[in-house]
Amino acid sequence: MPPMEQKTAVFDFLGLKTAICSASTAQYSRARDMSNDPLVVFTPSGKRGRFPVGTPVLTAARQLGVDLDSVCGGRGICSKCQITPSYGEFSKHGVTVADDALSEWNKVEQRYKDKRGLIDGRRLGCQAKIEKDVVIDVPPESQVHKQVVRKRAEARDIVMNPSIRLFYVEVEEPDMHKPSGDLERLCEALKKQWDVKGVKADLHILRQMQPALRKGAWKVTVAVHLGVDRQSPRIMHIWPGYYEGSIYGLAVDLGSTTIAAHLCDLKSGEVLASSGIMNPQIRFGEDLMSRVSYAMMNKGGDQEMTRAVRDGMNALFVQISKEAQIDQALIMDAVFVCNPVMHHLFLGIDPFELGQAPFALATSDALALEARDLDLNLHPTARVYLLPCIAGHVGADAAAVALSEAPDKSEDLVLVVDVGTNAEILLGNNDKVLACSSPTGPAFEGAQISSGQRAAPGAIERVEINPITKEPRFRVIGSEIWSDEDGFEQSIATTGITGICGSGIIEVIAEMRLAGLLDASGLIGSAEQTGSVRCVPEGRTNAYLLWDGSAEGGPRITVTNPDIRAIQMAKAALYSGARLLMDKIGVDTVDRVVLAGAFGAHISAKHAMVLGMIPDCQLDKVTSAGNAAGTGARIALLNTNARREIEDTVRQIEKIETAVEPRFQEHFVNASAIPNSADPFPILESVVTLPSVSFNTAGSEGGRGAGRRRRRAT
Amino acid sequence: MPPMEQKTAVFDFLGLKTAICSASTAQYSRARDMSNDPLVVFTPSGKRGRFPVGTPVLTAARQLGVDLDSVCGGRGICSKCQITPSYGEFSKHGVTVADDALSEWNKVEQRYKDKRGLIDGRRLGCQAKIEKDVVIDVPPESQVHKQVVRKRAEARDIVMNPSIRLFYVEVEEPDMHKPSGDLERLCEALKKQWDVKGVKADLHILRQMQPALRKGAWKVTVAVHLGVDRQSPRIMHIWPGYYEGSIYGLAVDLGSTTIAAHLCDLKSGEVLASSGIMNPQIRFGEDLMSRVSYAMMNKGGDQEMTRAVRDGMNALFVQISKEAQIDQALIMDAVFVCNPVMHHLFLGIDPFELGQAPFALATSDALALEARDLDLNLHPTARVYLLPCIAGHVGADAAAVALSEAPDKSEDLVLVVDVGTNAEILLGNNDKVLACSSPTGPAFEGAQISSGQRAAPGAIERVEINPITKEPRFRVIGSEIWSDEDGFEQSIATTGITGICGSGIIEVIAEMRLAGLLDASGLIGSAEQTGSVRCVPEGRTNAYLLWDGSAEGGPRITVTNPDIRAIQMAKAALYSGARLLMDKIGVDTVDRVVLAGAFGAHISAKHAMVLGMIPDCQLDKVTSAGNAAGTGARIALLNTNARREIEDTVRQIEKIETAVEPRFQEHFVNASAIPNSADPFPILESVVTLPSVSFNTAGSEGGRGAGRRRRRAT
Repeated sequence: MPPMEQKTAVFDFLGLKTAICSASTAQYSRARDMSNDPLVVFTPSGKRGRFPVGTPVLTAARQLGVDLDSVCGGRGICSKCQITPSYGEFSKHGVTVADDALSEWNKVEQRYKDKRGLIDGRRLGCQAKIEKDVVIDVPPESQVHKQVVRKRAEARDIVMNPSIRLFYVEVEEPDMHKPSGDLERLCEALKKQWDVKGVKADLHILRQMQPALRKGAWKVTVAVHLGVDRQSPRIMHIWPGYYEGSIYGLAVDLGSTTIAAHLCDLKSGEVLASSGIMNPQIRFGEDLMSRVSYAMMNKGGDQEMTRAVRDGMNALFVQISKEAQIDQALIMDAVFVCNPVMHHLFLGIDPFELGQAPFALATSDALALEARDLDLNLHPTARVYLLPCIAGHVGADAAAVALSEAPDKSEDLVLVVDVGTNAEILLGNNDKVLACSSPTGPAFEGAQISSGQRAAPGAIERVEINPITKEPRFRVIGSEIWSDEDGFEQSIATTGITGICGSGIIEVIAEMRLAGLLDASGLIGSAEQTGSVRCVPEGRTNAYLLWDGSAEGGPRITVTNPDIRAIQMAKAALYSGARLLMDKIGVDTVDRVVLAGAFGAHISAKHAMVLGMIPDCQLDKVTSAGNAAGTGARIALLNTNARREIEDTVRQIEKIETAVEPRFQEHFVNASAIPNSADPFPILESVVTLPSVSFNTAGSEGGRGAGRRRRRAT
Repeated sequence: MPPMEQKTAVFDFLGLKTAICSASTAQYSRARDMSNDPLVVFTPSGKRGRFPVGTPVLTAARQLGVDLDSVCGGRGICSKCQITPSYGEFSKHGVTVADDALSEWNKVEQRYKDKRGLIDGRRLGCQAKIEKDVVIDVPPESQVHKQVVRKRAEARDIVMNPSIRLFYVEVEEPDMHKPSGDLERLCEALKKQWDVKGVKADLHILRQMQPALRKGAWKVTVAVHLGVDRQSPRIMHIWPGYYEGSIYGLAVDLGSTTIAAHLCDLKSGEVLASSGIMNPQIRFGEDLMSRVSYAMMNKGGDQEMTRAVRDGMNALFVQISKEAQIDQALIMDAVFVCNPVMHHLFLGIDPFELGQAPFALATSDALALEARDLDLNLHPTARVYLLPCIAGHVGADAAAVALSEAPDKSEDLVLVVDVGTNAEILLGNNDKVLACSSPTGPAFEGAQISSGQRAAPGAIERVEINPITKEPRFRVIGSEIWSDEDGFEQSIATTGITGICGSGIIEVIAEMRLAGLLDASGLIGSAEQTGSVRCVPEGRTNAYLLWDGSAEGGPRITVTNPDIRAIQMAKAALYSGARLLMDKIGVDTVDRVVLAGAFGAHISAKHAMVLGMIPDCQLDKVTSAGNAAGTGARIALLNTNARREIEDTVRQIEKIETAVEPRFQEHFVNASAIPNSADPFPILESVVTLPSVSFNTAGSEGGRGAGRRRRRAT
C-alpha cells in the first residue's frame, strides 16, 4: 500500500523555523513576492511578519511562534484564540491600520458572538483573516504560556506549562480497507492537527474511546499527559465532542504536622481552593525521629504510618474537591513536597536508614509515579511527581523552597530559612548554593513552652514591653486591638486569652531581653534585680508574668526559665546551621534573609534578630516567603520545565551535614546566648539597645554580662 | 562540588567502535606500539585483535564486541564467561598457540573449579589472562545472544535477546558528605559496570533495596527490564549478593477454545513446561461471534468475559508453575497472542465494534503493559507484551504466525494458513505479504459433524478407503494399529471407538471422493450407485457407514450428507480467502503451503488438497508448522528485537477484508465443489485420480458430473 500523501513545508521565516504540516496552510507558500503582502505585528511579543491576504490570524501567529492558545484547532469552537486588533497610526511599528484590516465577521465567528458573547473589540483569531497591515494584541488569557501572578511582588510569576493539556481533534473514520485501530487514527489526528507525536493511551482509555468517538461523531477532546519534553505523551482522558470544562492538579506540602494542599485549575493556573489537615501520623510520634523509632520498635510500624498518611491524604482530597466544587476524578496531576522521612513513609519505604548515620536516602532523585501506586483516589491514571530530595535531612520540601525562592538566581547572597520542627537552610547566590538542616524541635511552634499553644484565636501573638515600666502590652489572635487599648476586653470576649503561640513567644522573649528583664545567658532577673513585680520566683529561677487571668478563671500566663531554655536551644540550632553555611562560603554577613514556612510569615524580623535566630542583617532585608514549599510545589505543578530546573538545581546544591561538622558545636554554644556570645550584631545594635545585664548570682564568670559584645573569636 | 573524575576512552579498534568506561581498563591504552602484543582470535565469530600481555580474555572479548556472557561483571562468581582455549597450529588463523598462551590458574579460578567444577579444557574468561597468541572458542552456552534451537529443521532458530536481564553489581556505600540516594548509587554502578544508562526502579524496589544492599554487603543482583532499545531500563527485582537462580517468561496463545502457554527460562531460552486449559469464556458462546453477541445482549457481559479469561489465565499460570516447579512470582515477562475479539476481551474492551462493519479495532498496535493492569498474578511488576493486530479480523495470533513463519523473508511464494474456528491466511514473499481471515466455523474441529468429536483417545484420526471394495480401514487416537491389523481390538479396549476428530473427517471425506463414493458436488452415492452396502440411506440423502459399534453398545459412526455440507462450507471459506489473496498478487498457484495451528499439524496434505481446502501445489511443499502462533509468541518473548520486527512487518502487510471483496462470493461458490468447480488441480491429479461421478438424480444440469474439470472462467 503506498503511504498516504502528505504535504509538509518547512521554511525559515524571520529567523523562526516553523513546520507547517496541514494541507490547508500549504497555500501560503513562500514561493512568491512577499513585499506586497500585508504586515502583521503582534503585541506584546513584537513578533512581525508579512502574510498573504486571507491568512487567518491564528495561522500567522503559529507561523511566527506567537503564543496564541487554541484547543479546538481553529474551528471556532473554543474561543481560546481571542485577539484584539488595534486600529490607527502606530509610528512605533511603522504601521497604519485601516478599519478593514481584518476580514468581515464570518458566520462561525458571528454565531460564536451571538451565542457566547465576545468582549467588545475582540475577534476569534482562527476566523478573522488578514486583509491589510494590522497590529494585533494577544490578551494574557489567550496565551498558552500565560503567567500566573503571585501575590508577593518580589516573587517571579509562574509561567503556565502544565504536564497535561487538552486537545480537540477530528478523527478519521474507520475504513475496512485500511484497517488501523481507532486509537491509531486518534493519535494520527493528534500528530497532524497538534504536532503531538508518538502518543500512546492509558489502558482505561481503550475501554472508553470507541463509544466516545462515535458519540462525538468522530470529534473528541482528549487530555494528554505530555511527559518530559513531550517524549512519551499519553492520553489520560477522553470526552465526546468539545469539552468545555477544565482539569485539575494538586500541589501538596506534606509536613510532619500538617498536610496542606492547593487545588489548581490546570488550564488557567488559578488556585481554586487551599486546604489542610493534621498529619494523621502524629499519633505515632510528634517529631520525625519519634516516627522513625516507632517504625524501628514496631514490626510493620512503617506500613501503619504509610497507610495513615495516605488515608489522610485521601480525606484531604475529598475535602478540597468539595470546597472547590469540582469532580475529584478530574484531578489528573499532583505534586508532592515533603521532608525525607515523610517522603519515605509516603512512598512506603521504611525510614530506618534515615534514623542513623550516614542517613542514606533510598532515593534522592525526583520521582514520576501514578496516583494508584500510592493508593490515592484521584483520576484513575493521575500522575504524581515528587520533587528531589537534597540530602538525608534536607528533603523535597527544601527543594521546593529553592524552586520558589530561587537562591541560585539571586544576585546578592541570600539566606533562606524554612522554619518548622526541622529547619531547612539554604545559603547562596547565582554562583553557588549550600544547604543543610538543623533540628530546631517544636519550640517555635509553641510546643515545650509552659503556656505555649498553636496559633489559634486566643493565643498571644504580638508583645511589647515598656523598657521603663517593664509592663507588657500584647495582641491576641482574633483581635486587632492591643491589650492596653479601649475595647480590648470586648474584642476578646469570645476567645479569651488562652496561651502564647510561636511568634508570640519569640516577641515576648526578645522584648524581655530589650527591657533588661532577661540577660544574654538566658536568665530572667528577680523582682529585686529588675525592679518589676512581674518577675516572680518559680522554683530556683524566675518567671515573667505576662497575663494573669486567674481572677476570671482564666490562665496565668508566664514565661519561665525552661521556656527560655527551649527557645535558646531551638534558635541556636537554627543559627548555627546558617553560620556553618556562612563559614563554608567564607562570609560573616548575608545580604538578605528570607523566612519561609507558615510560622516564618508571622515572625517579626527585629525580634528574631534580637534573639539571634538569624544573622545580623538590615531589618528591611528580612522578608517572609510564606509557605514557600507549597509555592514551589505549585510552580512544579503548573510548569513542567520547572521540574527539570529544580532537578538540575538540586544536583548542584552542595549539601552540608551539620552533625559531622566540627564547628557546629562551637557555633551552637555561642548561639545559645541572646543574641550570641561570639558573633557581633552591629546592624541590629544600630537600631536597638541590648542592656548589658547579668542575673547570674551563682558565680563571677558571667558576671559582667554574657550579653556584652565580644569580637568574633575566629 | 567538582564532578567525580571518570576516565573514558573511546577508540576505533579493527573497525569496531568500543567505549571503555571503567578505570580498570584504562591501563590498556592504545598509545603504544601494538605490533608486539599477543594476537587473540575468537571463534566462532572470527573476531581478532592484539592486546597487551595480562589482558583478561573477557576484557578482550568485550573490546572486540565478541558475544561473551557475564552476569557478575568479571568477578569469577557467575562462570557465565567460560571459554575454551585451543592449542597448537592454526594455519587458517596464522597462529600457533603455545601451552602457556593463557596465564596460570589464579586463586579465584581455582576456587571456582574446586567448588563448582569446570568442564575439562574450560577456563573462566574473566580470570584467564592473555600471555601469548591464542585462539579462544566461545561455547554456545557462554554467548549472551545464544540461539535456541527449534525442533523443526526449516524454522530459523531463536536468537536470545530477552527484555529482562540479570546484572550483578557492586554498589558504592553511602557517604554523608555526598548524600546521593542508595538507588542513585546502584544506578551509577549499573552504568559504570554494565553500561546500562538511565536506569529507574519500579516503586516496590525502593521498598526492598536498602535491606538487600546491606544484606549483600553492597553487592546485589538486579533484574533489569531493558525496554525497547534500552531506552527506559527499570529495575524489577533485587537479590542480595549473587543470585544463582533464573527468571522466567510466558508465551501465551489465547485462543477462542483453548489457552496454551509455554513457560520459558529467560536466561537459557529453554521451554520448562507447556500447558493449556479450555478458555473459560466458552460458557458464553462457542465461537467468536456468539461471544460478541453475548456482550451486546447482556449488560456487563463483556466484563464477565474479561473476568473469565483472566481467571482462566491465572489458573493456567498456577498449573504451569507447579509443573515446572518454579516460583510464579519470578515470572517477569509474558507475551500474548490472540485474535481480535479475544484481544479486546482480554484487555477489557467491549468487542462490540468487531461484530459489525467496518470491524474497527480499538487499537491495532502492539501493547506494552504491566501484568497488574490485566489482573494477572505474576511478578508484582511483570511486563506484558501483546503483538499487534493486523486487522479487525486478523489478530495478533496471525501476526505471531507471520513472525514464526516469516513469509516476508521467503524467497518463494508461500501460503500460510492458520486453521482454527477462524482461518487466518497470509500469502506472500520477501516482496509483499497479504493477509485476510475467513470464517471457517468449527467443522474442522469436529463440531457440527454428526459423529464429530475433539481430538481425544477413541477418535478416528486416519482413514483409508479401498477404491475397489469401498471398505474402510482407520486408526484411532491412542493406538498405532490400523483397524484391519492384528491386535487392533486389544489396543483400543480401554478407549473404544467414540467418534471422528477434525483430521479424521477430512481424511474420510477425501477418501470417499477418491473411492467414487462422493461426487464433486458433495453428494454421497446410494448403495446402487456406488455398489457399496456401506452407503446407507439417511433421510432424503445417503450416509457412509464408517464403523458400526452398536452390537457392542458402541456408536454407529457414519458420515452424513450434512457432515459433507459443513466441511464444504468450511473448506470453501478457507480456499476462497486464499484464492482472493492469489488474485490480489496475480497468481494462479503458490510455491508452497504451510499449515499452522494444532489442527494443521494433523492434516494430511493429500487429503486436504483432494477436498480443495488449499490450492494445488506439490504435496511435499505442503508442510505443517504446528502451533506457529505459540511459537511466534515464544520468539517475541525471548527476543525483543523480534517485537520491533513484527511491528514493522505488520505495518507493511496488506490487509484484505474478504466480506467486501466482490469476487469472494464467486470463489466461495466454486470452492464448494470437491475439490473445485472452476480452479484446476493438475499437480494433485498427477498423483491421484478423482473419479468423475455424479449422484445428482434430481436434474440433468449436473448430470455429467460437477466434479469434471473445467478451465477457470477468468
